[in-house]
Amino acid sequence: MPAKSDATLQQQIQQIVAEAIVSGRCAPGEKMPSSRRLAQHLGVSRITVTLGYTELVANEYLVSRDRSGYFVADTAPTRPVFADQTVIDSGGVDWNSKLARPSRLREDILRPPNWQDYKYPFIYGQSDPDLFDHGNWRNCALRAVGRRDFDSLAQDHYQNDDPMLVEFILRHILPRRGIRANPDEILITLGAQNALWMIAQLLLSEGQKAIVENPCFPGLRKIFDQMRYVAASVDVDSDGLAPDSIPPDADVVFTTPSHHAPTNVTMPLTRRLQMLERALQDDFLIVEDDYEFEMSFLHSPAPALKSMDQAGSVIYLGSFSKSIFPGLRLGYVVGAPALIREMRQLRSVVLRHPPSHIQRTTAYFLSLGHYDSQLARMARIYGKRRAIMEGCIREFGLEPAGREMHGGSSFWMKAPEGIDTTRLALDLRRESVLIEPGNAFFARRAPDRSHYRIAYSSINAGAIRDGMALLADAIRTAPRG
Amino acid sequence: MPAKSDATLQQQIQQIVAEAIVSGRCAPGEKMPSSRRLAQHLGVSRITVTLGYTELVANEYLVSRDRSGYFVADTAPTRPVFADQTVIDSGGVDWNSKLARPSRLREDILRPPNWQDYKYPFIYGQSDPDLFDHGNWRNCALRAVGRRDFDSLAQDHYQNDDPMLVEFILRHILPRRGIRANPDEILITLGAQNALWMIAQLLLSEGQKAIVENPCFPGLRKIFDQMRYVAASVDVDSDGLAPDSIPPDADVVFTTPSHHAPTNVTMPLTRRLQMLERALQDDFLIVEDDYEFEMSFLHSPAPALKSMDQAGSVIYLGSFSKSIFPGLRLGYVVGAPALIREMRQLRSVVLRHPPSHIQRTTAYFLSLGHYDSQLARMARIYGKRRAIMEGCIREFGLEPAGREMHGGSSFWMKAPEGIDTTRLALDLRRESVLIEPGNAFFARRAPDRSHYRIAYSSINAGAIRDGMALLADAIRTAPRG
Repeated sequence: MPAKSDATLQQQIQQIVAEAIVSGRCAPGEKMPSSRRLAQHLGVSRITVTLGYTELVANEYLVSRDRSGYFVADTAPTRPVFADQTVIDSGGVDWNSKLARPSRLREDILRPPNWQDYKYPFIYGQSDPDLFDHGNWRNCALRAVGRRDFDSLAQDHYQNDDPMLVEFILRHILPRRGIRANPDEILITLGAQNALWMIAQLLLSEGQKAIVENPCFPGLRKIFDQMRYVAASVDVDSDGLAPDSIPPDADVVFTTPSHHAPTNVTMPLTRRLQMLERALQDDFLIVEDDYEFEMSFLHSPAPALKSMDQAGSVIYLGSFSKSIFPGLRLGYVVGAPALIREMRQLRSVVLRHPPSHIQRTTAYFLSLGHYDSQLARMARIYGKRRAIMEGCIREFGLEPAGREMHGGSSFWMKAPEGIDTTRLALDLRRESVLIEPGNAFFARRAPDRSHYRIAYSSINAGAIRDGMALLADAIRTAPRG
Repeated sequence: MPAKSDATLQQQIQQIVAEAIVSGRCAPGEKMPSSRRLAQHLGVSRITVTLGYTELVANEYLVSRDRSGYFVADTAPTRPVFADQTVIDSGGVDWNSKLARPSRLREDILRPPNWQDYKYPFIYGQSDPDLFDHGNWRNCALRAVGRRDFDSLAQDHYQNDDPMLVEFILRHILPRRGIRANPDEILITLGAQNALWMIAQLLLSEGQKAIVENPCFPGLRKIFDQMRYVAASVDVDSDGLAPDSIPPDADVVFTTPSHHAPTNVTMPLTRRLQMLERALQDDFLIVEDDYEFEMSFLHSPAPALKSMDQAGSVIYLGSFSKSIFPGLRLGYVVGAPALIREMRQLRSVVLRHPPSHIQRTTAYFLSLGHYDSQLARMARIYGKRRAIMEGCIREFGLEPAGREMHGGSSFWMKAPEGIDTTRLALDLRRESVLIEPGNAFFARRAPDRSHYRIAYSSINAGAIRDGMALLADAIRTAPRG
């Protein structure tokens, strides 16, 4: 294996030559520059050029003729020529009248895409490149594109999931949450967002009442916005969602009992049991988003609501976005076969199935034990960062708003009266500090601009104190409305 | 990755092997990889593997046979049967009353998932393992999980696509179809199905009239089924969709001009121009699914409808499912910025974004020229297979139903009067022949059981003649209703 730069150079050479041939700049039969000349010209080693040429021969762009060098092959791919290329002019169509359902989605959480350029990114839900087990992920990806696996992965799987992934989740992940399920009770989704969206499509229609926690994960509210559906928000308290506060005419209750998003509080066992009882009594379904259950490093996580569900009222959601990495887009739903069947149908209409290669790579990552190692490593490092954060919160007199029990990866905070945290967040960017203003988590009818979230999942331990100091400064000097 | 002690590695190997055996993936009597191969594969020393194997022999998972290696023991533990586990009892919930929108999707095309076990798979839309450039895909996947790329891929991309992939499609793929577009006019989707679904969501509501070709790709009809939307089917003729047959109150017309699905006919230039004129005159939008444009190996493909679209009436769809592999789930839409913006919003609600790793791997596969090589190779091999098929069609007196122009990967056929092709397809399975009955392509109001499709994308040239002979025999002896 050549050094990385050589490999890259070689690929660059391939790219340049392939492009020249496809574009017609080099015609079939044309002689290529000798490897020596091209190497000189590009300032690379001759072997790099030769390897690039060899690869191009294998791909049938070039042919090699003994002693006379490389020539553009007669079989080389060409690009069809169109004389009359026209630039798209979309001036003619009135899109406002064409769009049947223009979106009126609420704002995202205020987060710049280039968060990695900030010195103090107290940002949530992104992967920490230093923490992720990149080497083993790479090995698993490699293994999943091995010839034997790959042949099956390249196929259209119609509506099926990767059996290896399903098996591992059923046998190893769900039992940790106290859940036992059969293969016809699980569906792989493109992350928790995709699962929530499908559930909302299938269970909600006009006249049915959905309950959401307030505050709650903004992605869920966006789903309702897009459906033109108005859900009922119920305020959580310091123990999460109170069963008493659920109206008797509820049809579906969306909740995050293990780890409320965004306050991180854990619903106590008594409430869980009450919740299940209420579900039976008032005949409603519970959608349990088992958000961040793997991040319970302070105490063992409480068993999932689903694990106590005798009647089948609970639909359970898990995701690998926080524990593996968010760009993965992989999660799962556990529910009754009748529901899973419908979800599978809906999924096939919307996107057929989650990409097979991603499913198999994840299956290897899980089954070879890398997932567990990574969780252990994350717990250790998050624990350390969290301790520093807690120290700073005390030292600088900041005010946490949640009563957290199990760890997680963020603190939910309350700014002093009169401070607008959206403005605070924007001001802090100028000092290279990123925090997340809380307004996006609240129902529209109850805007709240005093909360904010600070996460420690993407910031190095060494940067925390300086960042927290800047945050405390900014709060001290912020204008109060 | 911290170095693991040999003892840990050895335990891991034991775990992996034990798990494979217990789960049934390795059956009793199966030969294990040699210690050298497994050591190489796992990147551990050979002695570590040997110690692991020895331990597994002691635990009766494996037996060692002198000089021939290790085998799964007949006494090996098998998967525990969870007799005592409480299977989730969903008896308490009446799912029929809970599901707001139970699906009434039409049937899929009749295709067994284990099609690879059939000797004569004239099956469509699956990848041919012998044809796909597996080695180079693997290289690209590797490159995409290289440390530098990966750090960016692991992130949540919010609503953005991979810039490298977008750039390549804009600069190299679309120009081949005569299309020029800007980055705000393109969106990456989870295949064409996902693109069609999003377009239908955004452009269709009650009171708006969608036109679909009859016959047409069943996935599109399923989208309407799921939406409870009734589209108007317009019969195609031997030149595809006739502009004259589009009713003046049409709002959106779904069409496959380059290569009609499933008949494979190409819409002539005059019709294309008429279609664009009609769109302007009657103010409708055209959704152009540029289905199989890469498979035009008999003649150059006609330029896309989109390339002649001055007014911006055309929304263009491309996919890599046929040209790279179906399990990839990657496609794109080109349209006006206003539409693309809405689609991006919808996509973020439904699934956030297509997995980043897949996008980057594809970007490399394209930009390094492997995509073009693969297309050239497919054209050559499909051309050869097609010629054999044509010979057999003539020799056995079978009747093609389409007038094909450009190649593709299948023939659209008509059985003699009175033959039910669904029954024919089922009968042929017993002789290890797979054909696709045509009824799934037709509108419900006009059921048609006399057509069928035979594809040559997944069958070896050497198997074609015998398979076609069996098909001809079955047609000759089939009962006529």
